[in-house]
Amino acid sequence: MKKTDTIVALATGNNIGAISVIRLSGENAINICNKIFKGVDLENTATHTVHFGKIMDENVIIDEVLVSVFKNEKSYTGQNTVEISCHGSKYICAQIIALCLTNGCRLAEAGEFTQRAFLNGKLDLSQAEAVADLIASENKSQHAIAMQQMRGGISTELQNMRTELITFASLLELELDFSEEDVEFADRNAFQNLLKNLEKSLTKLSKSFALGNAIKNGIPVAIVGKPNAGKSTLLNALLNEERAIVSEIAGTTRDVIEDVINLEGIAFRFIDTAGIRKSEDTIEKIGIEKTFEKIKLAQIILLIVDVTEPMAEIILQYKNLVKTDSQEVIIILNKIDANNICDAYDIEEALMTTLQCKALAISAKQQLHIDKLEKLLLQTANIQNNATQDVIISNARHAEAIEQTLQAIATIKKGFADKISGEFIAIDVKRALHFLGTITGQVEVDRDILGTIFGKFCIGK
Amino acid sequence: MKKTDTIVALATGNNIGAISVIRLSGENAINICNKIFKGVDLENTATHTVHFGKIMDENVIIDEVLVSVFKNEKSYTGQNTVEISCHGSKYICAQIIALCLTNGCRLAEAGEFTQRAFLNGKLDLSQAEAVADLIASENKSQHAIAMQQMRGGISTELQNMRTELITFASLLELELDFSEEDVEFADRNAFQNLLKNLEKSLTKLSKSFALGNAIKNGIPVAIVGKPNAGKSTLLNALLNEERAIVSEIAGTTRDVIEDVINLEGIAFRFIDTAGIRKSEDTIEKIGIEKTFEKIKLAQIILLIVDVTEPMAEIILQYKNLVKTDSQEVIIILNKIDANNICDAYDIEEALMTTLQCKALAISAKQQLHIDKLEKLLLQTANIQNNATQDVIISNARHAEAIEQTLQAIATIKKGFADKISGEFIAIDVKRALHFLGTITGQVEVDRDILGTIFGKFCIGK
Repeated sequence: MKKTDTIVALATGNNIGAISVIRLSGENAINICNKIFKGVDLENTATHTVHFGKIMDENVIIDEVLVSVFKNEKSYTGQNTVEISCHGSKYICAQIIALCLTNGCRLAEAGEFTQRAFLNGKLDLSQAEAVADLIASENKSQHAIAMQQMRGGISTELQNMRTELITFASLLELELDFSEEDVEFADRNAFQNLLKNLEKSLTKLSKSFALGNAIKNGIPVAIVGKPNAGKSTLLNALLNEERAIVSEIAGTTRDVIEDVINLEGIAFRFIDTAGIRKSEDTIEKIGIEKTFEKIKLAQIILLIVDVTEPMAEIILQYKNLVKTDSQEVIIILNKIDANNICDAYDIEEALMTTLQCKALAISAKQQLHIDKLEKLLLQTANIQNNATQDVIISNARHAEAIEQTLQAIATIKKGFADKISGEFIAIDVKRALHFLGTITGQVEVDRDILGTIFGKFCIGK
Repeated sequence: MKKTDTIVALATGNNIGAISVIRLSGENAINICNKIFKGVDLENTATHTVHFGKIMDENVIIDEVLVSVFKNEKSYTGQNTVEISCHGSKYICAQIIALCLTNGCRLAEAGEFTQRAFLNGKLDLSQAEAVADLIASENKSQHAIAMQQMRGGISTELQNMRTELITFASLLELELDFSEEDVEFADRNAFQNLLKNLEKSLTKLSKSFALGNAIKNGIPVAIVGKPNAGKSTLLNALLNEERAIVSEIAGTTRDVIEDVINLEGIAFRFIDTAGIRKSEDTIEKIGIEKTFEKIKLAQIILLIVDVTEPMAEIILQYKNLVKTDSQEVIIILNKIDANNICDAYDIEEALMTTLQCKALAISAKQQLHIDKLEKLLLQTANIQNNATQDVIISNARHAEAIEQTLQAIATIKKGFADKISGEFIAIDVKRALHFLGTITGQVEVDRDILGTIFGKFCIGK
């Protein structure tokens, strides 16, 4: 599966900047770059050195550039790699890439540089996956979880488990070879203990996925309610809190501010339910059906009502809400003020008792109790971002593999209980080993699965 | 004016990519980076070397990075420079820049790296300006003109002129020192010849600005006409031709396709006259006044009419068009087909004779004669992109300085004709030298002017 042909891609973002970096990797990377570079002979340079010169298309100077040379296993991919740092014009980048193509490169596929790093043993599979997460990381928690994974946090834990399991598996195999002699090389008690420990560790990892997934993908929240209940005012109240604390470093702020708030490192993403950001009148025109479709995507639904509405009306709105069992609803009693504050608390109490749901009195306009709402959101998401937790899984593929390993372990345990022969137990142990191995790529992973994993990367990584 | 404090900025575009590059420059660039970098001691590395390591915020790993070190005059800025190549996450970039700031850097202003390169004598001023043009270049002609300027094309020509003029000026000064002896060190005939040659070269440069400006900024074109005359169909017909020849190299194509066509290296930019790309009905609602405002910006106006309209109606539309003397109008007779083609040519002929304007019969929908329209646009823009032309000016500041030099030369010539004393002529020669010098920055340029020049750069360059 290893590939040595030379690939090329833009490695930096594709909008205009002062500089752009074009990356080549493969057996002939240095040789190909040498053909279009005039300055020094790149073939006769040391690894990890930078050289000033010109990229030439025959007699036309395309750009004055810096070329960094990385040789063989010293590079990111484990192959000869060249990085061309040119002026950040799209025209220049396109010209240089075109020149590389005519001189023997092909365009890299998404994630192909990292895939090569994996295939050349520079990273295991879960570390390679973490590279994409690291690039996509937007806050401290996402960054921490991706960095931990890239640095081999999960890999180490899983490899230790696998080593222990492999030792037992080989003893079991040995027994099968000597099956006629009826010996037991593998200590059954020790194995039972091992399985218990494995189960405990894997269950912990599996449980951490809820937090990992929330950190990575955020919690989708929908705000619903009648026109003029204050949907967009509420959204703005929540977002304004957030925006005030976003640090603005020139050149690094986001182009588009999404409707997202970060609470204790968890992103709560507000679903745009039929133009909630637009004027309230417009919403109704777009139609309720489309809104319902969107609401289905939410994990938490904020039903916003006017606190001065009749109680029966509020209850009706709650009961009319089409929701699934896994969705949590918070009734937001909006527009509290000095006149209705006591009533509001009574209604809050009454709703919680009657409907067995969460309710909170606020004023979106006055920004009253927005802090309470934030706490309630965190509590409802049922996620505690415990920084002291050892290893957190944030990848659905890993979570699935761990689940499958746990099932295999359950089968092994049942096999022991049922006193089935070592032969069959060995098969289940192998299954467990296989699933564990797919996470780090220690067992050969399907080409399709690799395609899916690296296809999610950006081109140039 | 030289500055040695250490500046930091993101050097690559600020959207997500596989990698991003953060650049530090200044006396302490290497020292500051060393404080946050764990891998090798950067102070003890050779210039132009790359080092793998970690950026640390105390005990937290912010990223695994490559750091390139450039020492003193060997760098782009002529000062110690470090480039940190990190994973292309905005969060990571922001964290690293923040770390640099707390360790003694300040944020770079727009163009400050290149400004330092200029102040440290690595580039002259016109070369520095060309860096911004190079980054902004979007096609072959823009690229060629910027590259020529960055490689010193204009600088060399102007420096030669200045050297000759300086020689004469010093002889003239000498005469003044010996004024009582009434000698003439400076050969008046040779000087007259020099002035003639200077005038010729500068006039040629000055004239080249029309082409240079058109290449750099494009020709603004407005399409006007009644609803249903086919404005958006015409625009699409012109753009479709273009899009078909845009090469699509992954990662380098534009995010937003502008309404621009490139004809022989000149960009014709179609002004969005009140939502020409939207449905025709919408246009009228927005109001005619706003459209008129936009039309004023055009250099060429395409008045599109239905060829089946009465001739009188067409003439009326042309006469009602509010335009300035410098604007050129082309009447587009749209919707030709087999039935009206002969009439169309007659109308075309009649309009050109009667109104002394340009007219062309086409079908936007059938894409008939779009090629003719392109030729007519080029001809109307009156720009010949002559690749063999030596040096082309594309910078308005340069054009203005050349104009001022030409005026000073005219004054000198008049002085000679009027036989005024060498003393006064010397003053005008100094003025000519000053204006010539401002282009390359050989004379001290106003701090404000430098601010304006480099303020147009992106941050990080």
